[in-house]
Amino acid sequence: MTDQNASGEAYCARFHHAIELVGRRWTGAILIALGCERDRYTEIRDTIPGLSDRMLCDRLRELEAAGLVHRAVHPTTPVQVRYQLTPKGRALGPVLDSLSRWANDWLEADP
Amino acid sequence: MTDQNASGEAYCARFHHAIELVGRRWTGAILIALGCERDRYTEIRDTIPGLSDRMLCDRLRELEAAGLVHRAVHPTTPVQVRYQLTPKGRALGPVLDSLSRWANDWLEADP
Repeated sequence: MTDQNASGEAYCARFHHAIELVGRRWTGAILIALGCERDRYTEIRDTIPGLSDRMLCDRLRELEAAGLVHRAVHPTTPVQVRYQLTPKGRALGPVLDSLSRWANDWLEADP
Repeated sequence: MTDQNASGEAYCARFHHAIELVGRRWTGAILIALGCERDRYTEIRDTIPGLSDRMLCDRLRELEAAGLVHRAVHPTTPVQVRYQLTPKGRALGPVLDSLSRWANDWLEADP
């Protein structure tokens, strides 16, 4: 009984953490843009209407810290920075795709 | 070009709305409990470690308002209240299952 509760709590902790990570405003949209090979800062920003520079900057840092995004600096002139999904980030693709389908099927365009 | 932007914005609006709905703390766990036929208030609460009465009450009201949960009052003595997923709520099942699998595969038990 104790084991069952402990494993239930571990399950819940992981699930909450996942929901909190993905559920933050803009995070899902940024991950989708990265999944569509938009790998430069301005490309990502221009793909998502309403996303500010400041917010994109914060979210990319969070995603990097969480191990979902890798920031690669290419030593060209000028320096080029590219953002790529890590395997952990790419594995979220099917989750976001299925949420996207649900939203299209069940929500009004302008809630 | 304008049409493309408009449809991009409509897409984003739906997706943000979906993420905000599902991404709130406890909401995903409550939907999963309801999907497992835990349809009474105390059953749902006891399934989710750490969920308070107050929070469950608030979340169920939000889910009812969003059309994901139906609250059925059975005129027995004493009155019985059951919570059930609507078709819109049930359609979220695959999304939550896939997020759950991702969390189990990629997150530590105690982040």
